[in-house]
Amino acid sequence: MDRYVYFFGNKHADGDVSMKNILGGKGAGLAEMTNLGIRVPAGFTITTDVCTYYYEHDKKYPDELQAEVKDNIKKMEEAMGSKFGDVKNPLLVSVRSGARVSMPGMMDTVLNLGLNDDTVKGLIKKSGNRRFAYDTYRRFVQMFSNVVLGIDSSIMESILENKKKEKSVKNDSELSYNDLESLVTEFKNVVKKEKGADFPNDPEEQLWMGISAVFESWNVPRAITYRKLNKIPENWGTAVNVVSMVYGNMGETSATGVAFSRNPSTGENGFYGEYLINAQGEDVVAGIRTPQPINELSKKNPDEVSLETVMPAVYKELLEYAGLLEKHYKDMLDLEFTIQEGMLYMLQVRTGKRTAKAAVKIAVDMEKEGLIDKKTAILRIDPYSIAQLMYPAVDLSSKRDVLAKGLPASPGAASGEVVFSAEEAEEEVKKGKKVILVRMETSPEDIHGMSVSEGILTARGGMTSHAAVVARGMGKCAVTGCSVLEINGKQGEITAGKRVIKRGDIITLNGSNGEVYSGYVKMITPEINEDFKTIMKFAGGFRKLYVRANADTPEDAKVARNYGAEGIGLCRTEHMFFKGDRIKAVREMILSDTAEERQKALAKLLPMQKSDFLELYEEMKGYSVNIRLLDPPLHEFLPKTEKDIKELSEIMGISYEKLKSKTISLHEINPMLGHRGCRLGVSYPEIYEMQVQAIMEAACEFHKNGNKIIPEIMIPVVGIYEEIRLLKELTDRKAKEVMQKYGTKLKYLVGTMIELPRACMVADEIAKEAEFFSFGTNDLTQTTFGFSRDDIGAFLPDYLNKNILKADPFMELDRNGVGELMKIAANKGKAARTDIKLGICGEHGGDPSSIEFCHNLNLNYVSCSPYRVPVAIISAAQASIKAAKL
Amino acid sequence: MDRYVYFFGNKHADGDVSMKNILGGKGAGLAEMTNLGIRVPAGFTITTDVCTYYYEHDKKYPDELQAEVKDNIKKMEEAMGSKFGDVKNPLLVSVRSGARVSMPGMMDTVLNLGLNDDTVKGLIKKSGNRRFAYDTYRRFVQMFSNVVLGIDSSIMESILENKKKEKSVKNDSELSYNDLESLVTEFKNVVKKEKGADFPNDPEEQLWMGISAVFESWNVPRAITYRKLNKIPENWGTAVNVVSMVYGNMGETSATGVAFSRNPSTGENGFYGEYLINAQGEDVVAGIRTPQPINELSKKNPDEVSLETVMPAVYKELLEYAGLLEKHYKDMLDLEFTIQEGMLYMLQVRTGKRTAKAAVKIAVDMEKEGLIDKKTAILRIDPYSIAQLMYPAVDLSSKRDVLAKGLPASPGAASGEVVFSAEEAEEEVKKGKKVILVRMETSPEDIHGMSVSEGILTARGGMTSHAAVVARGMGKCAVTGCSVLEINGKQGEITAGKRVIKRGDIITLNGSNGEVYSGYVKMITPEINEDFKTIMKFAGGFRKLYVRANADTPEDAKVARNYGAEGIGLCRTEHMFFKGDRIKAVREMILSDTAEERQKALAKLLPMQKSDFLELYEEMKGYSVNIRLLDPPLHEFLPKTEKDIKELSEIMGISYEKLKSKTISLHEINPMLGHRGCRLGVSYPEIYEMQVQAIMEAACEFHKNGNKIIPEIMIPVVGIYEEIRLLKELTDRKAKEVMQKYGTKLKYLVGTMIELPRACMVADEIAKEAEFFSFGTNDLTQTTFGFSRDDIGAFLPDYLNKNILKADPFMELDRNGVGELMKIAANKGKAARTDIKLGICGEHGGDPSSIEFCHNLNLNYVSCSPYRVPVAIISAAQASIKAAKL
Repeated sequence: MDRYVYFFGNKHADGDVSMKNILGGKGAGLAEMTNLGIRVPAGFTITTDVCTYYYEHDKKYPDELQAEVKDNIKKMEEAMGSKFGDVKNPLLVSVRSGARVSMPGMMDTVLNLGLNDDTVKGLIKKSGNRRFAYDTYRRFVQMFSNVVLGIDSSIMESILENKKKEKSVKNDSELSYNDLESLVTEFKNVVKKEKGADFPNDPEEQLWMGISAVFESWNVPRAITYRKLNKIPENWGTAVNVVSMVYGNMGETSATGVAFSRNPSTGENGFYGEYLINAQGEDVVAGIRTPQPINELSKKNPDEVSLETVMPAVYKELLEYAGLLEKHYKDMLDLEFTIQEGMLYMLQVRTGKRTAKAAVKIAVDMEKEGLIDKKTAILRIDPYSIAQLMYPAVDLSSKRDVLAKGLPASPGAASGEVVFSAEEAEEEVKKGKKVILVRMETSPEDIHGMSVSEGILTARGGMTSHAAVVARGMGKCAVTGCSVLEINGKQGEITAGKRVIKRGDIITLNGSNGEVYSGYVKMITPEINEDFKTIMKFAGGFRKLYVRANADTPEDAKVARNYGAEGIGLCRTEHMFFKGDRIKAVREMILSDTAEERQKALAKLLPMQKSDFLELYEEMKGYSVNIRLLDPPLHEFLPKTEKDIKELSEIMGISYEKLKSKTISLHEINPMLGHRGCRLGVSYPEIYEMQVQAIMEAACEFHKNGNKIIPEIMIPVVGIYEEIRLLKELTDRKAKEVMQKYGTKLKYLVGTMIELPRACMVADEIAKEAEFFSFGTNDLTQTTFGFSRDDIGAFLPDYLNKNILKADPFMELDRNGVGELMKIAANKGKAARTDIKLGICGEHGGDPSSIEFCHNLNLNYVSCSPYRVPVAIISAAQASIKAAKL
Repeated sequence: MDRYVYFFGNKHADGDVSMKNILGGKGAGLAEMTNLGIRVPAGFTITTDVCTYYYEHDKKYPDELQAEVKDNIKKMEEAMGSKFGDVKNPLLVSVRSGARVSMPGMMDTVLNLGLNDDTVKGLIKKSGNRRFAYDTYRRFVQMFSNVVLGIDSSIMESILENKKKEKSVKNDSELSYNDLESLVTEFKNVVKKEKGADFPNDPEEQLWMGISAVFESWNVPRAITYRKLNKIPENWGTAVNVVSMVYGNMGETSATGVAFSRNPSTGENGFYGEYLINAQGEDVVAGIRTPQPINELSKKNPDEVSLETVMPAVYKELLEYAGLLEKHYKDMLDLEFTIQEGMLYMLQVRTGKRTAKAAVKIAVDMEKEGLIDKKTAILRIDPYSIAQLMYPAVDLSSKRDVLAKGLPASPGAASGEVVFSAEEAEEEVKKGKKVILVRMETSPEDIHGMSVSEGILTARGGMTSHAAVVARGMGKCAVTGCSVLEINGKQGEITAGKRVIKRGDIITLNGSNGEVYSGYVKMITPEINEDFKTIMKFAGGFRKLYVRANADTPEDAKVARNYGAEGIGLCRTEHMFFKGDRIKAVREMILSDTAEERQKALAKLLPMQKSDFLELYEEMKGYSVNIRLLDPPLHEFLPKTEKDIKELSEIMGISYEKLKSKTISLHEINPMLGHRGCRLGVSYPEIYEMQVQAIMEAACEFHKNGNKIIPEIMIPVVGIYEEIRLLKELTDRKAKEVMQKYGTKLKYLVGTMIELPRACMVADEIAKEAEFFSFGTNDLTQTTFGFSRDDIGAFLPDYLNKNILKADPFMELDRNGVGELMKIAANKGKAARTDIKLGICGEHGGDPSSIEFCHNLNLNYVSCSPYRVPVAIISAAQASIKAAKL
């Protein structure tokens, strides 16, 4: 790259908007506006390559840079008709950062650069405004001292405050020329004292110091953190924009402001913004004066004075610029402008940040207006943020009393009375109360309590702990891993630091940021509007991946269908085992000593399971329903505490000793790696036989009634060819029996979860039997990393902080490890069975980045929580559009 | 394959010993002997291909078979000068099974086939011995009825017994011609009654029925089980040998016997065997008459009469045959012979089974004698069985009172008083007693108790549970997973069914077969003799793999060196944490609230660890010592029960609540997948810093004293590049510090365990930092299969019984899953760092088949329990020799 500096001014720019990567967003925007004939102060951009060079060469610049800057200053001087550093007619500049993507407030800016005791005189002469000139000088010295020289800003601020007190004035603008002059001197004295050197007077020295300061600000901690959070690569670097100053602080016909071409909060098609008379940009940020609405539309109360009213001609020109730019950029824009003595200058144009709701509306409107096509409309939606449209949210502008912070395990918000057990939850809800279930951690036994609660709060467990997964599946808000809480269910108390919350106290959970509040908090309720439906329809036309839902109940299935799910990708039958009285029969089955006894207990469960499946089929008429045979270890269905064991032994008429010894014999040290999944089917084939019978009987009845459904029977935790061979044989045998009994034939599939590394390695063997693979990426991530979802909380924060992991691998699919194993499995599976159906049913099935990976892996479908179906639909469409572009 | 039948007789055979696969062991041996000019009755072999055909074609024979059999019968008749089915001069035959490898007693044999009421007359005429002929007829009908017709043998046996009672005689041989004739009639009546059909009289029908019976016997349950246990493929099939009868039951100059060319028990070079006058083979098996020693050497008491004395000429011929055959086969042989009226016939030759001790002696002797070369000598040793040479063993010929049976977790045998806790064990041992530690399961806290006990017995846990692994490491006998035992430590009782064993009672463990006996049992003590040392020396010359030991203590290291270990492949530092008072400092460290407090506690551990390492280095002077940094989760070091927590809180002066809450907060649901390994190093770098400091300080001191050692610092449970990067940096920094302090420089390596599937997938990244990989195949097997070693006991038996797994994957490396991952890792590792050192330190490092895999994977070394070092040395040499042959 031979050229390091790009000029803009005099209605022509060297660069344009396509050169964002080297000019940064701000530089590219200034160039583009210049080329469009919009009034922009002349200036130039030092490219991001220089930033990269700077950090790669021990903070030195390329040799050519100095000359290029000099040339461009000359051009700028010509365009503006003044001279940088000139005592009579000085040109002042701003030095601004600007990376490829906006990093608002993260990096540094210096305004009014080029002033000293000599040039300030020129400024006075030129403007005829002594006060303005010294106001500008004061601003410059204050800002430069902080940003470039690194002097704590509070020192200058307190001097300024003292001056105002001394003069008994309230606003900076009330200070006189003399006051400002003495402030400049005082500030310079501080610099001398703090730095042991004079404030630099040479404008060129100031300029280079300013440029370096901007490059340095690329690597200040807050910028690094921001990049980490927003996944911006370190090596992108920032550009530096040196722009001729225009002054919003030249009096009552001058101003500065920001505007959006449409409403960034609602998406409404209307110009929106605010401005300040006689001010420079930092005054808006400082928040001392209250900005006024840009137009009548933006007005919030009648006392406000809009720019539209005060300077109608300027406002009209601004509106025209906004219209021109929106048509040009074909997107909602964020604009910065300055008015100098009635003359409008544009200082920035960039794509405007917006809420999820606004994003949807703007995309749909712009498509309608013919500005963009459907593909572009879909790509405009941030799938990560649209999840928020499905849940109520805490109004973050309202007052909140934060008790503690845990993990944002399931989005949304909920308030309710604190209860400490599933039983309590049910009792209180029966009385008509709303409750929040608070537990150390949850287990399948708590599900009936979770389902009636407004939200779930646990002290232990990560983002994919039982509580988190179940809550997301139910679309219920949850905060997990809130380890500062000490929960004492017996005493009915939670301690959070020095505060104590008692049973029945109201708390509010914010599942979107993990905060727990005392009392009620104001909420924003969601709405699924027409725009949302339209964008979902757009997405349907482009995606290749089908989207299914993980649903265990008819209620889940109904929600999923409403959101557009095309079948069920995972029905966890074990959740049904906890419903109502069934747990009794389940326990009877577990406590059986012989296969015969076990069959007797299973016979009781059969009609219940069958009716569950019939209800599910009803909701998913015409689609595939993937049902996983029993997966969790049997001890999950037995009581744990002495008290519960005693109670159960009485209820079931079994000796305490027998029950106790059964729980001991079933106890496992690592249940995740224990007697579960198809291992249960191997040891107790009668359990799987009952489940297959229930699935197929329900399907046969459903078909006999003229309906259609394709049951997919999924065998979990397969890692060995013989497992699937044996259990497929069992399944087919039982299915044949049932179909013969009903005198009907129907299509069904038998397949497996791919959730163990070994399954990936021998996927070709497994595919000889399995008609589908469903990637169980939760467990596959656990075994590939050797991470227990339930225990990861102890070290995951360290891992993220120390940058060992870029993301929680249970939230975002790990492509190098888990993804590579999936690739092996998909390839081997297809090699052995060309028409094998491939899907994913882990939590990653609802994560946009992971969905893109699944699209590229040529899976047939993704399956996710019902409430994430829209996220998946948008993501699938985006993945498809992006892949087609390549 | 066009030919189905191979003839032998008249000093010429169609086949030879190289055709074992189609002729079976017996058929090939008979052919080979015939070709060598040894007297063998004429006959023919129907190949194993026919068996395969038979089972693949719904139990039908190939069309050509009948004609081929007919042709060969003709040849046999010509050779023997008699005719099959002839009334005057009948040829009788035996029909015998014979698979590729010997399956002694598993399949069927019919003797004397071809007799009926007519041919028996010819036999009388031919032999001039009416009694002999009817004895033979009786034997035939009895055997055919059982073996071919499937009539319960006890029916005929009780008729025979009744006849003897009736005649008041003791031996069959005392029955008269008339008695035998009436027995034949009675037997035939039984057949008529049981089968509703006459006993088949047609010799040809008898023959085909006999042949089918032998093929059928390939698939009787006992044969299937035997094949499963011995890993013999189902599709090998058996051959059928039809051999002219020669009669050992023709009177006092006839006999039958078996012999070994050398002593199969001791390996001594001397002819060895036994015989019975006037008998057929089954008399020896029936055990009614006591066989006599074949020669003076084999005599056990002076009353016995040897063949050498009775028939010196025949004996001489037999001895010559044995010598000829041993020279020809170049191995110790197992021979069967019959003497018919003074004429010796050989009926079988095969490689003789032998004890491990005999195998070693015979291999070494034969090499000395020039019969075989060193490579062959090494290949003659069964590495699986030589482990028994290192341990005392229960004398299985002595009387034993079996209480229960568990898993043979660590070989050897031990007797001692029952104790229920590590503390008890230590107390009793101090009093001079020998104890067996009995626990539900063991944990690291039990190690001090395990180390003083004679053996360990647990009710839970598999072959690679904590108890099993630690016991094998210590070379101590252990029985685990003995689930029938109810252990009640409080009451000091074990219940095994209806029997109760109390604290202090003597029990004996047999770690080689999993049996637990009441009281003392007679033992055989091991000896490492000169022959053993010689074979180990042979092995040293051929193997490519180095053999190291997993050793945590100087004692372990010493044993390992004595057995030939070349360094330590795994030193588990955590085991050192339980020694003496250290656990106090460890707990103090864990209970620290700040890094500073933690460092204070660690400072106490530093000198202890350092002295441990110095002691280890001393034993392993000149070699590499691989030390793994802390691996287990911290909760393993804290007490579990309420009582222990209370006790500890008093001892440590920490409040019960704090201690309790720490144990709760450290509790993990799946500790195997929890906060362990390098995750601890990431969270608490000061722990790893202390360990690195101790390792390096010890090494520097050791070097300063003029000794050499190469420390290999191993970072466990790495799965992510950044983990090893971060911790290698820490290690190198600390190592540099220490070396600077000592003013010395020494070579050390930093590397990692490869024990997670993800580590395999990103091994190229990891190898950028890691200088060695040590495959931790225990954990890698756990995560690849999703099998917890501690919990696999619940389903592994089902998996082995149902043939889902051929072997416990924790004992024998799973090549398709774990092995494939290892291949990926080895290849990626080498691609990124050509000189990377590759080893294995899982339990598989001591398993012969797994060692062969490691050799083929081009690892540099295997590391195993000290007591398995010889097994590994032999296996490594065998792998190398076998690979070179290919």
